Amino acid sequence: MLRIVAITGMPGAGKSTAAQALVKLGWSRVVMGDVIRAETKRRGLEPDAKNTGEVMKLLRKERGESAVADLCLESIFRQSAEKVVVDGIRSMAEVEAFRRRAAVLLVAVDASPERRFELLRERGRKDDPLTHEMFLERDRRELGVGIGKAIALADETVSNQHATPDRLAGEIARVVERWEKHGPA
Amino acid sequence: MLRIVAITGMPGAGKSTAAQALVKLGWSRVVMGDVIRAETKRRGLEPDAKNTGEVMKLLRKERGESAVADLCLESIFRQSAEKVVVDGIRSMAEVEAFRRRAAVLLVAVDASPERRFELLRERGRKDDPLTHEMFLERDRRELGVGIGKAIALADETVSNQHATPDRLAGEIARVVERWEKHGPA
Repeated sequence: MLRIVAITGMPGAGKSTAAQALVKLGWSRVVMGDVIRAETKRRGLEPDAKNTGEVMKLLRKERGESAVADLCLESIFRQSAEKVVVDGIRSMAEVEAFRRRAAVLLVAVDASPERRFELLRERGRKDDPLTHEMFLERDRRELGVGIGKAIALADETVSNQHATPDRLAGEIARVVERWEKHGPA
Repeated sequence: MLRIVAITGMPGAGKSTAAQALVKLGWSRVVMGDVIRAETKRRGLEPDAKNTGEVMKLLRKERGESAVADLCLESIFRQSAEKVVVDGIRSMAEVEAFRRRAAVLLVAVDASPERRFELLRERGRKDDPLTHEMFLERDRRELGVGIGKAIALADETVSNQHATPDRLAGEIARVVERWEKHGPA
């Protein structure tokens, strides 16, 4: 049976670092944002922030709240992957779509707003710095889609508040190995 | 300056265990549910689940979304406490009310739905067992008030997924001591 580690978390919390740690352990990786960007290009649009946002809204309108998860599942089944880490869960509707087709471990990666802002700024381009206003707006947008519920209902929570990337990687590996061995705790 | 450790988390996650660990370290404890129950009695009503729910709604209507936090603050100032752990944060409106009057560390205690259901059943009365329906309904009610956002925006997250009460207590003590020493990370 298909196994999916579904990773959620606020912007900048460390979702990609966590997902990449699983790639090193042999998991395939699907980034929900990439799937939206691909769909944006398919519709003949430049995949910038504005257009991907618009396409995401359109997709939800056309195919329901789990639209992006459904596109991810299509991509996963095309690849015939058996162990997949999905990076970028935003709502329980998405989690439920994955649960209909796979055994799913929902993992929340958490860090405080201050730390996420700092991590996003480090990651960002120097010539286009993230302002605090933009950061708050992005948080509001994610919370508006229902990411808070997905975080609150996660099967596992991994804190990236004081962790190095290596420690975060170790923690997520431990959590996933435990799941593979014993099933959900 | 007044310091408040504000504890949030879904029902059954282990908030009280975390709060009691801080009581042992000299912190005063205020339980938001107790404040609502006291207010329910003050209004001449039996403080059962139905009436406390009604009074909470009324309070929010009369005094705004942070009504319960405001009542807690009155109680805290009456006690002249300086280090207070507040057990049972349900929304960012409450956190913001505390932040206007105190230095606040918002801590989320997390566990999976399966584990929370199990912990709640262990805790509950044998002659009045919690059904899965009642559990889901309670989760929905909490999420409806906006607890998911408070969990998503926490300063610190402590997982109670695989912890014993002692380990959870140790973890929360570490997090709070770090805050007292260095301020928010």
